Amino acid sequence: MDQHMLVTNQVLRFENGEVQLVEDVIVTEFPVTIMLNGQEFATLVCSPQSIEELVVGFLASEGIISSYEDIKEIQVVETIGKAIVTTHRVNKLNEMFHSKRYVTSCCGKSRQSFYFYNDARTVKPIETKNKVLSIQDCFHLMENLQKSSTIFQNTGGVHNAALCDENGIIVARSDIGRHNALDKIYGYCLKHSISIEDKVIVFSGRISSEILLKAAKIKCGIVLSKSAPTELALRLANELGITTVGFIRNKTLNIYTNPERIII
Amino acid sequence: MDQHMLVTNQVLRFENGEVQLVEDVIVTEFPVTIMLNGQEFATLVCSPQSIEELVVGFLASEGIISSYEDIKEIQVVETIGKAIVTTHRVNKLNEMFHSKRYVTSCCGKSRQSFYFYNDARTVKPIETKNKVLSIQDCFHLMENLQKSSTIFQNTGGVHNAALCDENGIIVARSDIGRHNALDKIYGYCLKHSISIEDKVIVFSGRISSEILLKAAKIKCGIVLSKSAPTELALRLANELGITTVGFIRNKTLNIYTNPERIII
Repeated sequence: MDQHMLVTNQVLRFENGEVQLVEDVIVTEFPVTIMLNGQEFATLVCSPQSIEELVVGFLASEGIISSYEDIKEIQVVETIGKAIVTTHRVNKLNEMFHSKRYVTSCCGKSRQSFYFYNDARTVKPIETKNKVLSIQDCFHLMENLQKSSTIFQNTGGVHNAALCDENGIIVARSDIGRHNALDKIYGYCLKHSISIEDKVIVFSGRISSEILLKAAKIKCGIVLSKSAPTELALRLANELGITTVGFIRNKTLNIYTNPERIII
Repeated sequence: MDQHMLVTNQVLRFENGEVQLVEDVIVTEFPVTIMLNGQEFATLVCSPQSIEELVVGFLASEGIISSYEDIKEIQVVETIGKAIVTTHRVNKLNEMFHSKRYVTSCCGKSRQSFYFYNDARTVKPIETKNKVLSIQDCFHLMENLQKSSTIFQNTGGVHNAALCDENGIIVARSDIGRHNALDKIYGYCLKHSISIEDKVIVFSGRISSEILLKAAKIKCGIVLSKSAPTELALRLANELGITTVGFIRNKTLNIYTNPERIII
């Protein structure tokens, strides 16, 4: 657990009928501005941990880079909240398409509507069905995710995501932004040349259409969540061949889409 | 409760050691594209209820309109997911500043960083301190908010926000996007000429910096939340004179900033 992600703060707590001044742990939000090839590209509000991975994952999600090798130089200067990135090839069109943006912590994205309009080219249905999990694997992986982060319990303030195989967690990341947590994992995988295709994403947050599209983009066929999905996410999951399992709590779970990857 | 906000879906539920095909209730996400004076302005992903209020509140939050009277015509065409808006004055500069955007359900915003960079003009500290609440009022209002919506309990999928005075709820709205719920309330108040200045916002979601800035923009001095605040939100609340009370659960609460508006 990185100290930067939490700070202590004095609060007036009302408990058992009385008010006391106590030390409380509060989650931080940290704005990072990505300077891409000399231009301001986007500002992400994130938890200040694994910032380089976040920036790499975000640029890949946005189609600016397709591998870690596309980056010539990346430098995160935390003191001024900037990530300075130079890429080998400069795709003017792609960069122009993105206006200078501010990306909030709660969604981690202010993307153009790539799926609904014109960017379907980057999202293809996932066809491999060779990866399967048992129901016990689902419970086990969710339990591992929750054990891996104590920040949520402390502050109620961050989302946790992990890339797993059936044996357990390969990499886990926390962030105040749901998308950021996934982008950090994506960045880690790009940096360390880890394939996501035969893995599982385990996530503490809601499966919204955007989370689902992100899973499809990074080619992950199974998404497990502690929370609820949305109807639009489920329609996309059906279309894109992704298995979604939600509400994994207290030995109960729901399999929403493509159940052939879960052994029951 | 609007039927559109929920749909039923068949899921495979694992419970008590066995799998059954059951009907489940799923929350919907609905993309609405705002056409402003003939141009595509933004796409909001929302829960399809009170869409006109959402659009009005969003345009006001973005500084496009300052009153309901600034709107010449507004027409929501649900079948094609469009809100067609004509304003009396066309502020080309302001509209150009916003590129065509896609605003996700989880944040409801892809704003430029108005506070951190150059838009501080619209946010002024709240100086009136005449509105006060007792600790019992805080519990009572949170309880009212939770009673007012059963959707969250059903689906785990939406956020609830309400504008209250000490007597109870004036207007409550639910949305899959935290910001959308607040924008719907803002739109309602603009449409019905209800002042927010002497009221209280009660919110189910986390108090992030953006939620705090939205409260400041609409001039609400007290924000109550069931969830945690972030450290950046608390710094802004201090600066902007807003009272924040969080973690209102089980007869426990935390007063984070400007406690003079809470009687203890």
